[in-house]
Amino acid sequence: MDIIFQAIGLICSPFKDLEGMPIQSVSKASGPGRVEVFPEYQDGLKDLDGFSHIILLYHMHATREYSLTVTPFLDTSPRGIFATRAPARPNPIGLSIVKLIRIEDGVLYVDDLDVLDGTPLLDLKPYVTIDRTPE
Amino acid sequence: MDIIFQAIGLICSPFKDLEGMPIQSVSKASGPGRVEVFPEYQDGLKDLDGFSHIILLYHMHATREYSLTVTPFLDTSPRGIFATRAPARPNPIGLSIVKLIRIEDGVLYVDDLDVLDGTPLLDLKPYVTIDRTPE
Repeated sequence: MDIIFQAIGLICSPFKDLEGMPIQSVSKASGPGRVEVFPEYQDGLKDLDGFSHIILLYHMHATREYSLTVTPFLDTSPRGIFATRAPARPNPIGLSIVKLIRIEDGVLYVDDLDVLDGTPLLDLKPYVTIDRTPE
Repeated sequence: MDIIFQAIGLICSPFKDLEGMPIQSVSKASGPGRVEVFPEYQDGLKDLDGFSHIILLYHMHATREYSLTVTPFLDTSPRGIFATRAPARPNPIGLSIVKLIRIEDGVLYVDDLDVLDGTPLLDLKPYVTIDRTPE
Protein backbone atom coordinates (compact mmCIF):
# COMPACT_ATOMS: atom_id res chain seq x y z
CA MET A 1 0.00 0.00 0.00
CA ASP A 2 1.44 3.33 -1.02
CA ILE A 3 2.18 5.87 1.68
CA ILE A 4 2.02 9.30 0.08
CA PHE A 5 3.73 12.44 1.32
CA GLN A 6 4.30 15.89 -0.13
CA ALA A 7 7.20 18.26 0.22
CA ILE A 8 6.60 21.06 2.73
CA GLY A 9 9.68 23.00 1.63
CA LEU A 10 13.11 22.81 0.08
CA ILE A 11 16.58 22.55 1.56
CA CYS A 12 19.23 24.87 0.07
CA SER A 13 22.85 23.94 0.71
CA PRO A 14 26.33 24.40 -0.72
CA PHE A 15 26.30 20.74 -1.83
CA LYS A 16 25.32 20.82 -5.49
CA ASP A 17 26.04 17.20 -6.36
CA LEU A 18 26.29 13.85 -4.60
CA GLU A 19 30.06 13.61 -5.10
CA GLY A 20 30.77 16.60 -2.88
CA MET A 21 28.51 15.43 -0.07
CA PRO A 22 29.86 14.84 3.43
CA ILE A 23 29.63 11.17 4.43
CA GLN A 24 27.06 11.23 7.19
CA SER A 25 28.19 8.38 9.35
CA VAL A 26 31.86 9.31 9.23
CA SER A 27 32.31 13.03 9.58
CA LYS A 28 30.65 16.17 10.70
CA ALA A 29 31.87 17.92 7.52
CA SER A 30 28.87 20.08 6.85
CA GLY A 31 28.01 23.70 6.45
CA PRO A 32 25.50 26.48 6.75
CA GLY A 33 22.38 26.48 4.62
CA ARG A 34 18.71 27.36 4.44
CA VAL A 35 15.47 25.50 4.80
CA GLU A 36 12.70 27.25 2.89
CA VAL A 37 9.28 26.26 4.12
CA PHE A 38 6.46 26.70 1.60
CA PRO A 39 4.06 29.57 2.50
CA GLU A 40 1.09 27.29 3.24
CA TYR A 41 3.04 25.57 6.04
CA GLN A 42 4.75 28.57 7.61
CA ASP A 43 2.19 28.95 10.42
CA GLY A 44 3.53 25.64 11.70
CA LEU A 45 6.93 27.24 12.42
CA LYS A 46 5.67 29.27 15.39
CA ASP A 47 7.89 28.74 18.47
CA LEU A 48 10.38 26.54 16.62
CA ASP A 49 12.94 29.31 17.15
CA GLY A 50 12.96 28.37 20.84
CA PHE A 51 15.05 25.30 20.01
CA SER A 52 18.81 25.31 19.46
CA HIS A 53 18.75 22.21 17.27
CA ILE A 54 16.12 20.72 15.01
CA ILE A 55 15.61 17.48 13.14
CA LEU A 56 15.14 17.60 9.38
CA LEU A 57 13.46 14.72 7.62
CA TYR A 58 13.75 14.89 3.86
CA HIS A 59 13.37 12.95 0.66
CA MET A 60 16.74 11.88 -0.70
CA HIS A 61 15.41 12.42 -4.19
CA ALA A 62 18.69 12.06 -6.07
CA THR A 63 19.00 8.38 -5.20
CA ARG A 64 17.02 5.74 -7.02
CA GLU A 65 18.15 2.14 -7.21
CA TYR A 66 19.11 0.56 -3.92
CA SER A 67 20.77 -2.63 -2.90
CA LEU A 68 20.06 -4.37 0.41
CA THR A 69 23.77 -4.63 1.11
CA VAL A 70 26.38 -1.94 0.55
CA THR A 71 30.03 -1.44 1.36
CA PRO A 72 30.22 1.87 3.20
CA PHE A 73 32.93 4.47 2.66
CA LEU A 74 36.06 3.56 4.67
CA ASP A 75 34.74 0.05 5.18
CA THR A 76 35.80 -3.19 3.52
CA SER A 77 32.88 -5.59 3.84
CA PRO A 78 29.31 -5.30 2.65
CA ARG A 79 26.81 -4.28 5.35
CA GLY A 80 23.05 -4.47 5.44
CA ILE A 81 21.62 -1.20 4.15
CA PHE A 82 19.76 -0.61 7.46
CA ALA A 83 23.08 -0.80 9.32
CA THR A 84 24.29 2.19 7.27
CA ARG A 85 23.20 5.75 6.60
CA ALA A 86 23.61 5.31 2.84
CA PRO A 87 21.08 7.43 0.92
CA ALA A 88 20.04 4.72 -1.54
CA ARG A 89 17.63 2.71 0.61
CA PRO A 90 14.13 1.26 0.21
CA ASN A 91 12.45 4.45 1.48
CA PRO A 92 15.06 7.19 0.96
CA ILE A 93 14.15 9.34 3.96
CA GLY A 94 17.07 11.38 5.22
CA LEU A 95 17.51 12.54 8.79
CA SER A 96 19.82 15.32 9.91
CA ILE A 97 20.16 17.21 13.13
CA VAL A 98 21.10 20.80 12.43
CA LYS A 99 21.79 23.87 14.49
CA LEU A 100 19.08 26.50 14.15
CA ILE A 101 20.49 30.02 13.79
CA ARG A 102 17.30 31.96 13.12
CA ILE A 103 13.96 31.90 11.33
CA GLU A 104 12.94 34.78 9.06
CA ASP A 105 9.97 34.92 6.68
CA GLY A 106 9.54 31.16 6.60
CA VAL A 107 13.22 30.52 6.00
CA LEU A 108 15.29 28.66 8.57
CA TYR A 109 18.96 29.58 8.61
CA VAL A 110 20.83 26.54 9.88
CA ASP A 111 24.32 25.20 10.37
CA ASP A 112 25.80 21.66 10.35
CA LEU A 113 23.81 20.89 7.21
CA ASP A 114 24.83 17.81 5.21
CA VAL A 115 22.03 17.69 2.68
CA LEU A 116 22.08 17.98 -1.12
CA ASP A 117 20.91 21.34 -2.49
CA GLY A 118 17.29 21.26 -3.68
CA THR A 119 16.23 18.36 -1.44
CA PRO A 120 12.49 18.22 -0.69
CA LEU A 121 11.72 18.70 3.00
CA LEU A 122 9.25 16.28 4.60
CA ASP A 123 9.15 17.27 8.25
CA LEU A 124 10.74 19.42 10.93
CA LYS A 125 10.85 18.36 14.56
CA PRO A 126 12.39 19.94 17.62
CA TYR A 127 15.40 18.03 18.90
CA VAL A 128 14.41 17.12 22.43
CA THR A 129 15.85 15.25 25.39
CA ILE A 130 14.52 11.86 24.33
CA ASP A 131 16.63 11.97 21.17
CA ARG A 132 19.74 12.18 23.29
CA THR A 133 18.89 9.03 25.25
CA PRO A 134 21.74 6.59 24.79
CA GLU A 135 24.47 7.07 27.36
CA MET B 1 4.37 16.23 -6.46
CA ASP B 2 3.66 13.04 -4.55
CA ILE B 3 6.50 11.30 -2.77
CA ILE B 4 5.60 7.64 -2.48
CA PHE B 5 6.91 5.18 0.07
CA GLN B 6 6.01 1.66 1.06
CA ALA B 7 6.08 -0.05 4.44
CA ILE B 8 9.12 -2.29 4.95
CA GLY B 9 7.68 -3.86 8.09
CA LEU B 10 5.35 -3.42 11.04
CA ILE B 11 5.91 -2.25 14.59
CA CYS B 12 4.29 -4.34 17.33
CA SER B 13 3.89 -2.68 20.72
CA PRO B 14 1.78 -2.84 23.87
CA PHE B 15 0.09 0.43 22.85
CA LYS B 16 -3.16 -0.60 21.23
CA ASP B 17 -4.79 2.81 20.98
CA LEU B 18 -3.76 6.46 20.86
CA GLU B 19 -5.17 7.18 24.31
CA GLY B 20 -2.68 4.92 26.07
CA MET B 21 0.33 6.28 24.19
CA PRO B 22 3.27 7.82 26.03
CA ILE B 23 3.67 11.53 25.24
CA GLN B 24 6.92 11.63 23.33
CA SER B 25 8.21 15.06 24.22
CA VAL B 26 7.40 14.73 27.91
CA SER B 27 8.31 11.32 29.20
CA LYS B 28 10.30 8.24 28.50
CA ALA B 29 7.28 6.12 29.39
CA SER B 30 7.70 3.37 26.86
CA GLY B 31 8.15 -0.33 26.73
CA PRO B 32 9.50 -3.38 24.99
CA GLY B 33 8.19 -4.38 21.58
CA ARG B 34 9.02 -5.89 18.23
CA VAL B 35 9.79 -4.58 14.79
CA GLU B 36 8.91 -7.15 12.16
CA VAL B 37 10.71 -6.53 8.89
CA PHE B 38 9.04 -7.98 5.81
CA PRO B 39 10.94 -10.96 4.30
CA GLU B 40 11.95 -9.12 1.11
CA TYR B 41 13.89 -6.53 3.15
CA GLN B 42 15.51 -8.79 5.75
CA ASP B 43 18.87 -8.98 3.92
CA GLY B 44 19.21 -5.28 4.73
CA LEU B 45 19.38 -6.09 8.47
CA LYS B 46 22.88 -7.61 8.27
CA ASP B 47 25.21 -6.05 10.89
CA LEU B 48 22.48 -3.90 12.42
CA ASP B 49 22.87 -6.01 15.57
CA GLY B 50 26.23 -4.30 16.11
CA PHE B 51 24.41 -1.17 17.29
CA SER B 52 23.03 -0.65 20.77
CA HIS B 53 20.39 1.83 19.63
CA ILE B 54 18.59 2.33 16.36
CA ILE B 55 16.36 4.95 14.80
CA LEU B 56 12.90 3.94 13.66
CA LEU B 57 11.10 6.04 11.08
CA TYR B 58 7.47 5.12 10.67
CA HIS B 59 4.16 6.24 9.27
CA MET B 60 1.89 7.55 12.00
CA HIS B 61 -1.05 6.05 10.18
CA ALA B 62 -3.67 6.55 12.87
CA THR B 63 -3.56 10.32 12.55
CA ARG B 64 -5.28 12.13 9.73
CA GLU B 65 -6.36 15.75 10.00
CA TYR B 66 -3.71 18.13 11.20
CA SER B 67 -3.68 21.72 12.31
CA LEU B 68 -0.63 23.96 11.88
CA THR B 69 -0.89 25.02 15.52
CA VAL B 70 -1.56 22.75 18.48
CA THR B 71 -1.56 23.08 22.25
CA PRO B 72 0.75 20.34 23.50
CA PHE B 73 0.04 18.18 26.55
CA LEU B 74 1.06 20.01 29.75
CA ASP B 75 1.27 23.29 27.83
CA THR B 76 -1.14 26.21 27.84
CA SER B 77 -0.54 28.08 24.59
CA PRO B 78 -0.82 26.95 20.99
CA ARG B 79 2.51 26.12 19.33
CA GLY B 80 3.46 25.68 15.72
CA ILE B 81 3.13 22.00 14.79
CA PHE B 82 6.82 21.83 13.78
CA ALA B 83 7.80 22.99 17.27
CA THR B 84 6.07 19.89 18.68
CA ARG B 85 6.30 16.13 18.28
CA ALA B 86 2.53 15.81 17.84
CA PRO B 87 1.66 12.91 15.51
CA ALA B 88 -0.93 14.82 13.45
CA ARG B 89 1.35 16.80 11.12
CA PRO B 90 1.52 17.50 7.38
CA ASN B 91 3.67 14.41 6.71
CA PRO B 92 3.05 12.12 9.70
CA ILE B 93 6.50 10.55 9.88
CA GLY B 94 7.38 9.38 13.36
CA LEU B 95 10.90 9.08 14.72
CA SER B 96 11.91 7.05 17.74
CA ILE B 97 15.25 6.00 19.10
CA VAL B 98 14.99 2.56 20.64
CA LYS B 99 17.31 0.16 22.37
CA LEU B 100 18.08 -2.90 20.28
CA ILE B 101 18.01 -6.11 22.31
CA ARG B 102 18.46 -8.68 19.54
CA ILE B 103 17.50 -9.58 15.99
CA GLU B 104 16.06 -13.00 15.20
CA ASP B 105 14.50 -14.17 11.93
CA GLY B 106 13.88 -10.66 10.68
CA VAL B 107 12.34 -9.54 13.95
CA LEU B 108 13.99 -6.82 16.02
CA TYR B 109 13.35 -7.07 19.74
CA VAL B 110 13.59 -3.56 21.12
CA ASP B 111 13.02 -1.57 24.27
CA ASP B 112 12.03 2.07 24.93
CA LEU B 113 9.36 1.81 22.25
CA ASP B 114 6.67 4.52 22.17
CA VAL B 115 4.88 3.61 18.97
CA LEU B 116 1.30 2.51 18.35
CA ASP B 117 0.83 -1.21 17.69
CA GLY B 118 0.51 -2.01 13.99
CA THR B 119 2.40 1.06 12.78
CA PRO B 120 3.97 0.71 9.30
CA LEU B 121 7.77 0.90 9.39
CA LEU B 122 9.45 3.16 6.79
CA ASP B 123 13.14 2.98 7.63
CA LEU B 124 15.72 1.76 10.15
CA LYS B 125 18.99 3.58 10.72
CA PRO B 126 21.82 2.98 13.13
CA TYR B 127 22.02 5.62 15.84
CA VAL B 128 25.47 7.09 15.39
CA THR B 129 27.62 9.77 16.97
CA ILE B 130 26.34 12.57 14.74
CA ASP B 131 22.84 12.16 16.16
CA ARG B 132 24.18 12.93 19.60
CA THR B 133 25.73 16.23 18.50
CA PRO B 134 24.19 18.98 20.59
CA GLU B 135 26.06 19.51 23.85
